[in-house]
Amino acid sequence: MTENYKKIKQIYEGKAKKLYTLKGHKDLLLQEFKDDATAFNALKKGKILNKGIINCELTTFLFTYLRKKGVRNHFVKQVSANEMIIDRLKIVPIEVVVRNIAAGSLLKKTNFKEGHQLAKPIVEFYYKDDSLGDPMISDSHALAMKIATEKDLKTLKQMAENINTILKPFFLKRGLKLVDFKLEFGKDKTGRIMLGDEITPDTCRLWDKKTNKKLDKDRFRFDLGGVNEAYAEVRKRILGK
Amino acid sequence: MTENYKKIKQIYEGKAKKLYTLKGHKDLLLQEFKDDATAFNALKKGKILNKGIINCELTTFLFTYLRKKGVRNHFVKQVSANEMIIDRLKIVPIEVVVRNIAAGSLLKKTNFKEGHQLAKPIVEFYYKDDSLGDPMISDSHALAMKIATEKDLKTLKQMAENINTILKPFFLKRGLKLVDFKLEFGKDKTGRIMLGDEITPDTCRLWDKKTNKKLDKDRFRFDLGGVNEAYAEVRKRILGK
Repeated sequence: MTENYKKIKQIYEGKAKKLYTLKGHKDLLLQEFKDDATAFNALKKGKILNKGIINCELTTFLFTYLRKKGVRNHFVKQVSANEMIIDRLKIVPIEVVVRNIAAGSLLKKTNFKEGHQLAKPIVEFYYKDDSLGDPMISDSHALAMKIATEKDLKTLKQMAENINTILKPFFLKRGLKLVDFKLEFGKDKTGRIMLGDEITPDTCRLWDKKTNKKLDKDRFRFDLGGVNEAYAEVRKRILGK
Repeated sequence: MTENYKKIKQIYEGKAKKLYTLKGHKDLLLQEFKDDATAFNALKKGKILNKGIINCELTTFLFTYLRKKGVRNHFVKQVSANEMIIDRLKIVPIEVVVRNIAAGSLLKKTNFKEGHQLAKPIVEFYYKDDSLGDPMISDSHALAMKIATEKDLKTLKQMAENINTILKPFFLKRGLKLVDFKLEFGKDKTGRIMLGDEITPDTCRLWDKKTNKKLDKDRFRFDLGGVNEAYAEVRKRILGK
């Protein structure tokens, strides 16, 4: 924390992050990354060593990189090892998942085997609602619930595909296959849609380019061992430390 | 069976119907409706009195009505109490569900309560695959699996919406709310998409206009009693017998 940003009140605690309001900055928030890890809609709980710090650093780095490439996002500045200042957005309650390689829940919706290289990326929408378990929805549901307009959905899809186009080669150059990832978006005070949340091994499936070793939260989800090491390895490959 | 249509071989047996090839008519099939009822991906099994006959009569009536309204479909003619001749189609492995009122699985994907009148119909796609339990998919999955083209998906959606526009007032005039229904489609030998399968209380949720009493397979699914009577009641309201 620098003296310019003084936390006032925690307004949200999620599975992996907390949000605080800031004194004198009503359009900004402080986002704190936790070491806590959860899976299967929080049925499984644990901690991952230095995850808060690693995910804060990775999100700082990747959101800065994406902004350079023209992707509007909520990142303002990192202010401590595991805290960053972000624009305060009105969250769109839709998680956008982009898939390049078949894995995870896609294996229950299609006959693709794990590791199948998709001819083109699949983009999915999930309704952010813990009580429903974040179910997959289609455009039709989002429109009926009035959680997004047709234009919003088009923007979400286009931004997600664009981010994928930018990040896929970025990760590959660092020896990582971007298998799939989850994005969240929100609207700023002018109503523009911006990328929010985080981009980390919590929200991306990342496999080693040569061995296909999983280097992401699946190691925690499925008790594969070497969880802390996987997060440290991703940090090393992306940030060189 | 008239002497013109002689069954050769059963080529398919589903949960509610059988299909046979016909001697001398390679572009046609015979569709036989069974009294068997199943639910929850065949975990629950039973029989409904006269269902084969009722569903054959209702499908004959509704497909004839839809054809008059310009909806291409596979119906050719009824040849016995529970058998009809249909065009042989190459099935598109997508079930198309249209919803006017919230019920069934929609309650698990949204926060709508049962009975909520949707501002506009919701159209959903499900991948026809028993081993996966017919999961809901989006356009993106259908394209990735190459089970349909973008043009096909647009046609499916438009035909489904058009059928809903035709059937909703049709049922309402007979004291029935068309809550939701499932359609299946296939391509004829020229590649044109046509409506296939059936339209019956097995595939539609129908509620009494005044009392909201369920008059469809939900009575069987959820052990509500009066299953045979509900099918007979729908038959009476639509066919006057």
